[in-house]
Amino acid sequence: MSIEETLAGFVLEPVAGEGAREMMRLSLFDWAACGIAGGAEPLAAILRAKALEEGGAGQASLIGGGRVPMRSAALVNGAISHALDYDDTHFAHIGHPSVAVIPAALAMAEGRDLGTEALIDAALVGAEASVRIGLWLGRDHYQIGFHQTATAGAFGAALAAGRIAGLGREALVRALGLAATRASGLKSQFGTMGKPYNAGIAAETGIEAVDLARRGFLSSGVGLSGPQGFGPTHSGVAEEDALERLGSFWRMEDVSHKFHACCHGLHAAIEALRGLDLGTGDVGAVRVLTHPRWLSVCNQPAPETGLGAKFSYAQVVAMVLAGVDTSSIANFSDEMARRHDLVALRGLVTVEADPRLSEMEAHVVVTLRGGAGREGSFDLDAPMSREVRGEKLRRKAEGLLGAARAEALWEAVRAPDLAPLTGLLQLRN
Amino acid sequence: MSIEETLAGFVLEPVAGEGAREMMRLSLFDWAACGIAGGAEPLAAILRAKALEEGGAGQASLIGGGRVPMRSAALVNGAISHALDYDDTHFAHIGHPSVAVIPAALAMAEGRDLGTEALIDAALVGAEASVRIGLWLGRDHYQIGFHQTATAGAFGAALAAGRIAGLGREALVRALGLAATRASGLKSQFGTMGKPYNAGIAAETGIEAVDLARRGFLSSGVGLSGPQGFGPTHSGVAEEDALERLGSFWRMEDVSHKFHACCHGLHAAIEALRGLDLGTGDVGAVRVLTHPRWLSVCNQPAPETGLGAKFSYAQVVAMVLAGVDTSSIANFSDEMARRHDLVALRGLVTVEADPRLSEMEAHVVVTLRGGAGREGSFDLDAPMSREVRGEKLRRKAEGLLGAARAEALWEAVRAPDLAPLTGLLQLRN
Repeated sequence: MSIEETLAGFVLEPVAGEGAREMMRLSLFDWAACGIAGGAEPLAAILRAKALEEGGAGQASLIGGGRVPMRSAALVNGAISHALDYDDTHFAHIGHPSVAVIPAALAMAEGRDLGTEALIDAALVGAEASVRIGLWLGRDHYQIGFHQTATAGAFGAALAAGRIAGLGREALVRALGLAATRASGLKSQFGTMGKPYNAGIAAETGIEAVDLARRGFLSSGVGLSGPQGFGPTHSGVAEEDALERLGSFWRMEDVSHKFHACCHGLHAAIEALRGLDLGTGDVGAVRVLTHPRWLSVCNQPAPETGLGAKFSYAQVVAMVLAGVDTSSIANFSDEMARRHDLVALRGLVTVEADPRLSEMEAHVVVTLRGGAGREGSFDLDAPMSREVRGEKLRRKAEGLLGAARAEALWEAVRAPDLAPLTGLLQLRN
Repeated sequence: MSIEETLAGFVLEPVAGEGAREMMRLSLFDWAACGIAGGAEPLAAILRAKALEEGGAGQASLIGGGRVPMRSAALVNGAISHALDYDDTHFAHIGHPSVAVIPAALAMAEGRDLGTEALIDAALVGAEASVRIGLWLGRDHYQIGFHQTATAGAFGAALAAGRIAGLGREALVRALGLAATRASGLKSQFGTMGKPYNAGIAAETGIEAVDLARRGFLSSGVGLSGPQGFGPTHSGVAEEDALERLGSFWRMEDVSHKFHACCHGLHAAIEALRGLDLGTGDVGAVRVLTHPRWLSVCNQPAPETGLGAKFSYAQVVAMVLAGVDTSSIANFSDEMARRHDLVALRGLVTVEADPRLSEMEAHVVVTLRGGAGREGSFDLDAPMSREVRGEKLRRKAEGLLGAARAEALWEAVRAPDLAPLTGLLQLRN
């Protein structure tokens, strides 16, 4: 059976996995919180103005208000929800599953008048598929420059939207074929609005592929895996085990949520250091040990902007030592990057690669002023109960939206109808 | 200077090249004729229904009637105009420049209320840029599976639309950056609706990139050529000479127009055989010699469908010998592929690769029933005066649209205002 047929079959099965479904409910909550907060970013104003100027049938909600065609809503909401880069990450393929898949699933669910549980099923199946397709494409695909969030994400978005649209197996395969010729997204956009735009492109591609397939548009049946398909043309390695236990084992149960408003590569180090509970005055030196790949991603020694601070071990170590809340987006500002006491603390930090650590682990070695030493470790992959995770996500949402709106959102992802959720998304933050 | 800056500078220059401009006027005429005729294809009905259902601001005309946002019009018109695969081809990079670039330029020109000469300038600059970018990407890019019509075409579409939108140099570079993360299109869609869809994707990408860049959306400044830019990630070879004499030498003067309703790889052989002026009864055997690459493209020995017939040396040789008009789309039908006398004539044909021939040449060796031989050659690259080309294109358009509408279209591409052209495009064929 082709990978396309396997994926289509998976989408058509009932979803058996309550743990994975509840994890997706948390991701939906977190996605919406990031999206509503992202609605205040400059990128959001541009994309919203464009979509509202184009106008059209009011099929689906825009974050920040207004209703537009599903395709437009998916593009705009995908980009806005990734604007803060505070949404969930899956480290298996290195991508952000929710920002590509949920906007497509939500727009299609609104267009088809479905409820929250159908949305969660579809989003889960689509996100799981995107992680599996990302694994099938492999690290080469990512390393050469493709943004898995967007590329693997487009296929996941198509499958999520296709499930909601009620496509049959054959139409799902055609939708994958259309997504294959439209999927795109480059990592070289990182650091510009092009990065969140990539997530929007993926979500829109998912909607369009499904809409066309539903209308009978013809496409390749092996768009991903066939000769000169998406995989072979985009440095895919066609990893054999990628789809193993699809439907019974859920990789989305291992999705990571961000609790700090910076690059995910910094989070394990922040947690390791926080675990030591040190004060500013105690510390003489901090050594951070991390997986080698992060040194080229988030090791700016002396950032001068808020954006730079989000990619700096030295800065976040200084913030933790000084008691500055790293979960607050507002604290990753240009002013904070230049604050004298933090700049001084950055001077105590050294960062080293340690190939024995996984990409999700970090180790910190602190020398106290008296000369004594303290060490701490953290693994983002360590088990966290759903209750603890839920509480942490609620506190994060409170920081982003305020307590009342966070609470309303927590209820909204448990309401049978989508209206409470789309109502909150339509509000301005 | 980066390739992005060179291209932006080219777009901002006044167009100096009357021969190239008149060639683009012929391509515009031919594009519109193919587009209006393509409006009757099944793909057109699907895409039009989708665009009209989405609706929105009536910024630009749809082929076949209706007005929709520029972005939708570019997508639909790009795909419809490539539906018959009867539009122009450039063999330098192997792509169809007009179907990606003209729909974007036209939609933007309508949106900005500009006239025919501004459209021709922009379409010429965009088409020329797409051929140059295709050359810069190189044969590896094409051979690995990317559809230059769509990939190089997206950048050409962006530059054409950007010229019309009045973008400055810096915004044009950003538009290229956005196109770089959105451009896509696979050859593995050939033989499905995905092929013409690719042209529409490119046109839409051009519009969207320009619209966002105009609104201040930020992107990579070296989206094509930078580290992990579009070229390096898509098997581009960064051919050094690709942009040589840009603005003074026009590759678009060498664009090829189709005068037979089948794969361009068959045209030289058809012309070579037609030059011998033979009748059905005269011929005992026909050897066709052609460039090796065409054997894997258009050498179906016994096609059973009209689509298959478009990719068959044997079938077109049989048609020429039997006096069947190869310029008529209607003659590439399932019935014609199964007509007994043609099937019998196909048995006389052998096809051989000859690496001494260019991709645009063919040689035919005919053995007459009496045993005597006749030989003929044709090179699609041989000079053809603009007058002769214009006459041939008018006859082609008459076959597609009828004499009255072809004549009106001929006048429309010479009218200062775009209304006569868009009026004709909006009619149903």
